[in-house]
Amino acid sequence: MAAPFTLLKTDSASAGRRGRLHTRHGTVDTPNFMPVGTQGTVKAVTPAQLREIGAQIILGNTYHLNLRPGSELIRDLGGLHRFMGWDGPILTDSGGFQIFSLAKLRDVREDGVAFQSHLDGARLFLGPREVMAIQSNLGSDIAMVLDECPPWPCARDACAQACVRSLRWAGQCREIAAESGFLASGGHVFGIVQGSTFDDLRRETAEGLAALDFPGYAIGGVSVGEPEPEMLKQVGATVPYLPADKPRYAMGLGTPPQILKMIALGVDLFDCVLPTRVARNGLAFTPDGPINLRNERFRTDPRPLVEGLDNYTCRNFSRAYLRHLMLAGEMLGGTLLTLHNLHFFLDLTAQARAHIEARDFGAWHRAWVERYEAESA
Amino acid sequence: MAAPFTLLKTDSASAGRRGRLHTRHGTVDTPNFMPVGTQGTVKAVTPAQLREIGAQIILGNTYHLNLRPGSELIRDLGGLHRFMGWDGPILTDSGGFQIFSLAKLRDVREDGVAFQSHLDGARLFLGPREVMAIQSNLGSDIAMVLDECPPWPCARDACAQACVRSLRWAGQCREIAAESGFLASGGHVFGIVQGSTFDDLRRETAEGLAALDFPGYAIGGVSVGEPEPEMLKQVGATVPYLPADKPRYAMGLGTPPQILKMIALGVDLFDCVLPTRVARNGLAFTPDGPINLRNERFRTDPRPLVEGLDNYTCRNFSRAYLRHLMLAGEMLGGTLLTLHNLHFFLDLTAQARAHIEARDFGAWHRAWVERYEAESA
Repeated sequence: MAAPFTLLKTDSASAGRRGRLHTRHGTVDTPNFMPVGTQGTVKAVTPAQLREIGAQIILGNTYHLNLRPGSELIRDLGGLHRFMGWDGPILTDSGGFQIFSLAKLRDVREDGVAFQSHLDGARLFLGPREVMAIQSNLGSDIAMVLDECPPWPCARDACAQACVRSLRWAGQCREIAAESGFLASGGHVFGIVQGSTFDDLRRETAEGLAALDFPGYAIGGVSVGEPEPEMLKQVGATVPYLPADKPRYAMGLGTPPQILKMIALGVDLFDCVLPTRVARNGLAFTPDGPINLRNERFRTDPRPLVEGLDNYTCRNFSRAYLRHLMLAGEMLGGTLLTLHNLHFFLDLTAQARAHIEARDFGAWHRAWVERYEAESA
Repeated sequence: MAAPFTLLKTDSASAGRRGRLHTRHGTVDTPNFMPVGTQGTVKAVTPAQLREIGAQIILGNTYHLNLRPGSELIRDLGGLHRFMGWDGPILTDSGGFQIFSLAKLRDVREDGVAFQSHLDGARLFLGPREVMAIQSNLGSDIAMVLDECPPWPCARDACAQACVRSLRWAGQCREIAAESGFLASGGHVFGIVQGSTFDDLRRETAEGLAALDFPGYAIGGVSVGEPEPEMLKQVGATVPYLPADKPRYAMGLGTPPQILKMIALGVDLFDCVLPTRVARNGLAFTPDGPINLRNERFRTDPRPLVEGLDNYTCRNFSRAYLRHLMLAGEMLGGTLLTLHNLHFFLDLTAQARAHIEARDFGAWHRAWVERYEAESA
């Protein structure tokens, strides 16, 4: 297998990078955005529609798929790609984020995490061995190590303990992936940097993970309630200690301006439920900020969501029609807005790639963010 | 404009017909099935997906679209085709069915029907002038006359009155369509035969409508709760009195076997919410009868819904996956089952056309129905 990451170009006025991430299901141009397919589907859209809007890689969810329908079932049916009809790369998270998001239903131990199912209360345990087995069952192209995602804010002692534990689990996950044949079959395993708001813990964990020589690194423990400046500070405190020749992935982020700001900090990959989740409530992204289609002012608006944006929704439907669908409670409204919002995010990273190649990313992204934030405010 | 209907061939062993219906938005091969787009969308699917599965014509709903978003708004935005992104033929109903389905919210008068909106209680009146204006605003290719759909069972006197009223309204609708320029612009107006279970009233109304020389005729007052034998009897009592050189449309019908049985009686067009409505509850049609994907027996079933059926759902997804989507409450489940069910109905009428052309429709459809009903029972 070729080296998993090729760094093609670096922006002159920022730390922005243009690269290519190679997986056994194809190549991902970076920077890029991964639509989230928690339960074996990116909500409201088909894999064919994902291809149409240029998605190159999607994210699946270990915790949720393991509960329902179960990772053995998916393995027996040929793996997650075949199960959900997506033949491109899939990155799977490890369940570590659920340590944060399902805090009341879990107990962190030294050897892993005991959960009570949010569906039926059944007990399950996720340690390094379990999460790697599940991700192997799913046939993940990029498996994430088990980590402990601390809340925000977090006491330093508790955070330091979580970092030590996460680092130990990361090493175990890597070993298990080697022993089980997951690496030999072409799967990648990415490490995850925690450390909350403590720059020195971020650095220590990043360096500790780098010593384990992962083919890619994620920045975790962001998007857990902290304000945007804090979030960007944490990303900025982590990136410099990650190997320059490996891809960097900011987990669970972010808004369009946040994504551009993090690309400028040197981040390569993003995932977020934002574009899909808000779509189903009638919110659409535009270069002038998000608009809520339920608003009366769109009642007779014949314009597309974004003039000239080349996706099925913008090519064919007016804001007035999309508003009608949302008010009438029609599923197609959620589908068309999901398509548009995901394309908006994918197109944004495609524009970022082009501007990094043209070496004018710095000025371009500042102007883009300024326009978006001016109109949103 | 060419004659609106070309009769190409008649089956040897049944009254089944192969024809072509010409509209200003394209030609419809008959027999054919029309997906229902009540609120300006065929629920859960895009117009592009409708094209993919071979839909040639869809149905829109006067009563519902007039309430929300309003037919003037749709007119101002370029008509229903442009509004909903469908450039093929559209047939619109007249609101007559809501006289039956919203019986508690309406008052039938000699000059039309007074409704209370099912959405907000607002009063509205639909007479011949109103329904033709609305359908003209929508830009309908085939407008239906206003009719009074009686319930089942129905007293003979009340039914006779409804027939007289409907026949008068039909004549008025035709005149209004001529005066308003709707006909000159290439729109068609179809008459609707009522008469409930009374063969002589069916005959009288059919002959009365035929004298008005409509370019097509619908059989209404079916699918209002009567048992299948009664429904087929009514269709059989109506068809012989309709002009052989004009298309015949059975409104609101039916199951796959019912459609084949009515094709054998000489019906050319169908519409029904059945395939779309049940899809969203997890029901899928197969040649061996419908199956409920929520059933435990499909938990590990790797097979497509129908082996060899060439639609996106059957080409890409297992029953186990579709079951998972339904149990997880994922919108994509409703979309993929809707796609499949609509394609199943469209493919069934395509098969019927091929067998009429081959002049073996009689034997083929009896065998088809026998298999479907044997397994369903």
